[in-house]
Amino acid sequence: MNKYQAEIDVMPKKEILDPQGKAVTGSMKNIGLSEIQNVRIGKHISLEIEAANEEAATEKVEQACKNLLANLIMESYTFKLHLV
Amino acid sequence: MNKYQAEIDVMPKKEILDPQGKAVTGSMKNIGLSEIQNVRIGKHISLEIEAANEEAATEKVEQACKNLLANLIMESYTFKLHLV
Repeated sequence: MNKYQAEIDVMPKKEILDPQGKAVTGSMKNIGLSEIQNVRIGKHISLEIEAANEEAATEKVEQACKNLLANLIMESYTFKLHLV
Repeated sequence: MNKYQAEIDVMPKKEILDPQGKAVTGSMKNIGLSEIQNVRIGKHISLEIEAANEEAATEKVEQACKNLLANLIMESYTFKLHLV
């Protein structure tokens, strides 16, 4: 078995309002960073996974994202795997 | 002025307990994914920034992370910039 590290981003979908991101965009102006726009805030998840190969690890991470980590109605996910 | 997209990860520091991650690690077992271990959960932030060059954009994103997005006592951040 190999051990892989997965780095997953779960973000609100583009067509979904992101009130936390909007609030932070406003706060950027207050601290003098008005050049910063369009802030969107989601989750970053790192995890370790034991699997026979990268394909099996990818499958498990897909399952974890779909069943637990992301709400697919409102969020989308992307991830990268690397061997540790 | 150029427009850059920044992709920022804000994660709890290694020496800090991550109760949300621990809870999710436990839930992985319940949905049949006991191969998944050591889940840690942080924030992923994407934003757009106008700057003269990549160096100036990096400086502004550093400021945003230090002053607003991350709590440096408990969290660390990493980011990538790309031109849009």
